[in-house]
Amino acid sequence: MQNLNVGLIGGGFMGKAHSLAYAAMPMFFWPAPAMPVRKVIAEATDELAGEAARRFGFENSTSDWRSIIDDPDIHVVDIATPNHLHAEIAIAAAEAGKHIICEKPLARTGEESKAMYDAVKNTDLVHMVAFNYRRTPAVALAKKYIEEGAIGRVISFRGTYLQDWSADPNSPLSWRFQKSIAGSGALGDIGTHVIDMARYLVGEFSSVNSIMSTWIPERPLQSGGADKLGNVSGGDGPRGAVDVDDEVLTMVKFANGAIGSIEATRNAHGRNNFLTFEIHGSEGSIVFNYERRDELQVAFASDPADRKGFRTVYTGPATPYGEGLWPIPALGIGYGETKIIEAYDFFKAIAEGGSVSPNFADGYQTALIDDAIIDSAETGAWVDVAKIDS
Amino acid sequence: MQNLNVGLIGGGFMGKAHSLAYAAMPMFFWPAPAMPVRKVIAEATDELAGEAARRFGFENSTSDWRSIIDDPDIHVVDIATPNHLHAEIAIAAAEAGKHIICEKPLARTGEESKAMYDAVKNTDLVHMVAFNYRRTPAVALAKKYIEEGAIGRVISFRGTYLQDWSADPNSPLSWRFQKSIAGSGALGDIGTHVIDMARYLVGEFSSVNSIMSTWIPERPLQSGGADKLGNVSGGDGPRGAVDVDDEVLTMVKFANGAIGSIEATRNAHGRNNFLTFEIHGSEGSIVFNYERRDELQVAFASDPADRKGFRTVYTGPATPYGEGLWPIPALGIGYGETKIIEAYDFFKAIAEGGSVSPNFADGYQTALIDDAIIDSAETGAWVDVAKIDS
Amino acid sequence: MQNLNVGLIGGGFMGKAHSLAYAAMPMFFWPAPAMPVRKVIAEATDELAGEAARRFGFENSTSDWRSIIDDPDIHVVDIATPNHLHAEIAIAAAEAGKHIICEKPLARTGEESKAMYDAVKNTDLVHMVAFNYRRTPAVALAKKYIEEGAIGRVISFRGTYLQDWSADPNSPLSWRFQKSIAGSGALGDIGTHVIDMARYLVGEFSSVNSIMSTWIPERPLQSGGADKLGNVSGGDGPRGAVDVDDEVLTMVKFANGAIGSIEATRNAHGRNNFLTFEIHGSEGSIVFNYERRDELQVAFASDPADRKGFRTVYTGPATPYGEGLWPIPALGIGYGETKIIEAYDFFKAIAEGGSVSPNFADGYQTALIDDAIIDSAETGAWVDVAKIDS
Amino acid sequence: MQNLNVGLIGGGFMGKAHSLAYAAMPMFFWPAPAMPVRKVIAEATDELAGEAARRFGFENSTSDWRSIIDDPDIHVVDIATPNHLHAEIAIAAAEAGKHIICEKPLARTGEESKAMYDAVKNTDLVHMVAFNYRRTPAVALAKKYIEEGAIGRVISFRGTYLQDWSADPNSPLSWRFQKSIAGSGALGDIGTHVIDMARYLVGEFSSVNSIMSTWIPERPLQSGGADKLGNVSGGDGPRGAVDVDDEVLTMVKFANGAIGSIEATRNAHGRNNFLTFEIHGSEGSIVFNYERRDELQVAFASDPADRKGFRTVYTGPATPYGEGLWPIPALGIGYGETKIIEAYDFFKAIAEGGSVSPNFADGYQTALIDDAIIDSAETGAWVDVAKIDS
Repeated sequence: MQNLNVGLIGGGFMGKAHSLAYAAMPMFFWPAPAMPVRKVIAEATDELAGEAARRFGFENSTSDWRSIIDDPDIHVVDIATPNHLHAEIAIAAAEAGKHIICEKPLARTGEESKAMYDAVKNTDLVHMVAFNYRRTPAVALAKKYIEEGAIGRVISFRGTYLQDWSADPNSPLSWRFQKSIAGSGALGDIGTHVIDMARYLVGEFSSVNSIMSTWIPERPLQSGGADKLGNVSGGDGPRGAVDVDDEVLTMVKFANGAIGSIEATRNAHGRNNFLTFEIHGSEGSIVFNYERRDELQVAFASDPADRKGFRTVYTGPATPYGEGLWPIPALGIGYGETKIIEAYDFFKAIAEGGSVSPNFADGYQTALIDDAIIDSAETGAWVDVAKIDS
Repeated sequence: MQNLNVGLIGGGFMGKAHSLAYAAMPMFFWPAPAMPVRKVIAEATDELAGEAARRFGFENSTSDWRSIIDDPDIHVVDIATPNHLHAEIAIAAAEAGKHIICEKPLARTGEESKAMYDAVKNTDLVHMVAFNYRRTPAVALAKKYIEEGAIGRVISFRGTYLQDWSADPNSPLSWRFQKSIAGSGALGDIGTHVIDMARYLVGEFSSVNSIMSTWIPERPLQSGGADKLGNVSGGDGPRGAVDVDDEVLTMVKFANGAIGSIEATRNAHGRNNFLTFEIHGSEGSIVFNYERRDELQVAFASDPADRKGFRTVYTGPATPYGEGLWPIPALGIGYGETKIIEAYDFFKAIAEGGSVSPNFADGYQTALIDDAIIDSAETGAWVDVAKIDS
Repeated sequence: MQNLNVGLIGGGFMGKAHSLAYAAMPMFFWPAPAMPVRKVIAEATDELAGEAARRFGFENSTSDWRSIIDDPDIHVVDIATPNHLHAEIAIAAAEAGKHIICEKPLARTGEESKAMYDAVKNTDLVHMVAFNYRRTPAVALAKKYIEEGAIGRVISFRGTYLQDWSADPNSPLSWRFQKSIAGSGALGDIGTHVIDMARYLVGEFSSVNSIMSTWIPERPLQSGGADKLGNVSGGDGPRGAVDVDDEVLTMVKFANGAIGSIEATRNAHGRNNFLTFEIHGSEGSIVFNYERRDELQVAFASDPADRKGFRTVYTGPATPYGEGLWPIPALGIGYGETKIIEAYDFFKAIAEGGSVSPNFADGYQTALIDDAIIDSAETGAWVDVAKIDS
Repeated sequence: MQNLNVGLIGGGFMGKAHSLAYAAMPMFFWPAPAMPVRKVIAEATDELAGEAARRFGFENSTSDWRSIIDDPDIHVVDIATPNHLHAEIAIAAAEAGKHIICEKPLARTGEESKAMYDAVKNTDLVHMVAFNYRRTPAVALAKKYIEEGAIGRVISFRGTYLQDWSADPNSPLSWRFQKSIAGSGALGDIGTHVIDMARYLVGEFSSVNSIMSTWIPERPLQSGGADKLGNVSGGDGPRGAVDVDDEVLTMVKFANGAIGSIEATRNAHGRNNFLTFEIHGSEGSIVFNYERRDELQVAFASDPADRKGFRTVYTGPATPYGEGLWPIPALGIGYGETKIIEAYDFFKAIAEGGSVSPNFADGYQTALIDDAIIDSAETGAWVDVAKIDS
């Protein structure tokens, strides 16, 4: 079992989640495909980096992420920064021959994403974009059902990702509301998770038709330290313009003939992390709600008439990844487990010399879908989604 | 309390529901605004009509619906026929000075609906189109919340109506799959209920952008008697073409700036009568699912942070129409109650010399939305919804 | 199809529900086993009775219930009065040779119930006690599953009936809080519904062990007209003692070896009509909640490991009574439908010369269980349930 | 921030959960009260122990748990063994002056528990029994509501813990079915979690009245290695007697006048980890289901009549422990988080020189309740719960 040294760039919410995954992955999946070693963590200042190293269990710390790239002992670069830094770091890491795991969305635009993809596509490097939600065991079970043909031919998909944390007009103008840093708003931040799931479960997008709305056009400028999401408590001070979307709504035509819709908003009072999908097939249906993520609902057309209805299946030992998780269903899948599974698949790919999904090709394709959605929202027309040459 | 004599045309599923409403309305809402008298019922043959009269408690029966129109003792004409007969009957009834309640959708097309609306618009007649679901007490409660400003400004609406009864490719080619009789498929049959709710709760549609799909292009020809929905058990015999939609998906821009989406399908395995909406406002959200129709979920932004979340409010004496329904919440609202309330409001309008919603203007406006949806699905473009002059 | 003339005694909430059932039963179940004729209704005064007749569609009215007993044209006596009048009326009706449907509980005590049972047991009369909830289609489906062996041998039952309408200490001292009229409190009023379901689904009770609590020992005396439940708005005036239970909790040993618990309270804030059960068998489980009464949940041990879980089955045409109800699942079962089905089975028994359950034997047996529960709550010991000789 | 060296005894399911907690606690709660150091882990053989050390990130390993007790560098002994070893290890650890965290139940009997309690009660050691479920954030929120008086005086409690993993009669006779090792069956294994929650949320037990059942009296003898729960795949071989309960049902009278019931079974098909409670108070109610552990339902009597109902509150930054968990509600609380919080409170108590609940006094009191339940199930009488002198 080889040790693989990780350099993690970014010690915020995502740094925490990834650190947990590295510590816990071998505990869950044993024998582990490889042992992640928390070697070095980078933050904005030496002090922050040092504190992050102690907190997250890294051996060393740095305020210069390039030193991680330059370190020949590092095998894996983990990018957990705001979106605008993804491309520069990832391209440097690829050139230095590091395996890369990068937080989502891959980058701010399709163009930036292409550069990242180009940097890895002719290499043997393992690259991954961290759309972790598709690794929720219940989502993996949905994938299994579909691949087994249990619901027949998929004809429609409806996905949502509804949150409420930006519904307060006095929440501050964090980087997530700034196009120059985030690329887009609800679309890139959360909509891409639904797009990733739709691609995973249904297939490639053919064309989209979209609405994007900005419900709160101005927010208080940040004047202090950011919280873990990059937010600062707002106030009565001056306001700045929000130049990203609060909500996106799109219809989808899939390449295989299915149709669908996706809605993402951070302005839905009462919804916290309402990442859902409903899939109709010719022989059955599947329904998922991440807020109740231990469960998957599935209905089979072939059930007897008086015993037909959605089954609420709790994931556990008998469902995907069950061998590594908890011994009884409903002991409880949390956010951490999605990241632990992600780390497992990533390190397995490195150990086995293979590849993993979603990778930079997937991240780039998702960015092209984002571009098409933005284009459609501006023009009001159906826009064909460009295809990467893979 | 005046007696009002009703002539009911159609003794199928809807005839049953309306008959129940006439018998039960005074039991529920007392003193009743007026006493409906089940005077005469029309069916296709004398035999069927006679049986329907006995079953549904009508004094007389006829196989000639025009005799009802011609009968000076009849005050109310109730149209519970397939869609293609609505216009002819309603226009005749209006010319004869009868109050009219007509099953939904108002007619097959906007043009037909206009003729019906024109027939009543300059009269004192009470006319109603039977979009009964907006009279579910929980939906009326949602309306009350919105009118009180409890969720602030409405910014988005998501509605669905999912059923599965036509997902079986061997279910027969009933009239509901034939454009010449039904006008459209899932759109007119069930989508219009969602459209009616959206208009009721959010406001007028400005433009739409739509997809319509026919998943099962051919069905077995009918060769025998129809069931209560007009369906016949199919088989191995010859098949005919379905020329209506199985599924419709549309985005909506409302006149007040809100956005939304609507999905209606009769091919969703596991969904039975999944008529739902989710409404986001600047100060709260509302969620409804007719399958659990005693309940309305509402979230208020103003609740304290540690006590915030969707409240599941059960309708009862303290909510709209509660004075006439059951004395304790969750004793149970069924389909019948929605029709009893509908009858109450209809007869109250007659008794008070007023009008009621949804009326033929609403039915016509909904038909214009349908026309726009069909147009958009064909052209792929946003289509402005025409406005009736009211 | 014979006409059967009904004399209904009591024009309150239950009078309304029964009247609805008589009007609607043939509409739903056609051909009807017999045609109920709403012949005469009795209320406390001529004026009240006359109004009730108009409201509920009866031909005649009376303030003297004995005139109904004496009327040779009456075939059926329907007892919808407070509990203390059940025995006297029922015994008189039996002696007069009338079929009888009596609201639940059968009477105030086992002794009173015995007298009623004795009055009918050697006759050909059809007698029924109106535990309507077992006629919820989902409950009938549970019965079907159990009889088919779908969940194997039943080993445990947990039932609740939770309401909140008496949780307010200022709600008045209506008859439901007075032992002399009601017999008992939550036990007789709602607990008996759970007991009836437990007997229906699991079998006879062997012994019980119970707690009974009165949480609000005094309530405002009534000083005016009662509402539909017999309640009067309370106030600051003098208070009287509550001498019945607000809550009852009992463990049960069934004759077949199963065990269980039952909880009934009218002091559960947030619960409206939370009549639930959960049944575990050797091969599966069944869960029901009347607040979501269109649904039954069932889990089968034999399902494959990765497709195992509670199925949410919506009742409809394919489940018991479906032929008479609505043509699509989830159109909506309400309180009325439970009463319509009850009337159907009652009149069918009369027409066919048979009997029906739950009848006076069942009502008497349930009263003996009540007696044992009260005894156990007083003594703290397990109390064997006496068996009627049937 | 001091380092505290942990010696963990047992490398099974619980060893995994505790190891995760030690690695992750500082990542979540920062600054951490102390840094747990995974120093040494004990397992049955050197080989197993060595593998566990690599998997769970411990520096050293041993097959002799006494060497951990004897090691002066160890500050904390963590007991994650089967129940019959708890007492011997804990007493030795206490005598050696180690802080102790012990898996639940504290021991097999009240007598054994007393010995453990006696060993720590006059020391300054921090001791904890790992009833982790009370540290689910939603349960901590329930505690907060109750302490704030938000639901008034608690009058009733209903708790369940339903699983299905032993419903298969061919699952093997693992240690959990043997009284000599486990002490009791469903009662000690899972019932104690509910008892712990009831004590935490309502208060001390005064007396109990119980039923205990063994549904599957014989199981296949184990013939090979155990799985993570100690189970071995059964088969056709010889069977041995189960001498513990499969199901326990008890009524409870609390010292403060509240009443309640508790049901625990491992034979409930379709239930996975159905740990639930419903609490009624004079001013509101609280409902919890661990299978949907991100949520707590609370109803307030003081809400306006048309806005009254259970609120579904998702725990997050605004609720207990939120500062250390995930930044948005419903990102996902899993089993791991309950253990991370447990470790946080345990190490905080050590760092601050205080104590923590539930400790050995709580574990002992719970064992006395178990004893009373067993006594009552045998005698059929109410049994007073003995009180520890604390």
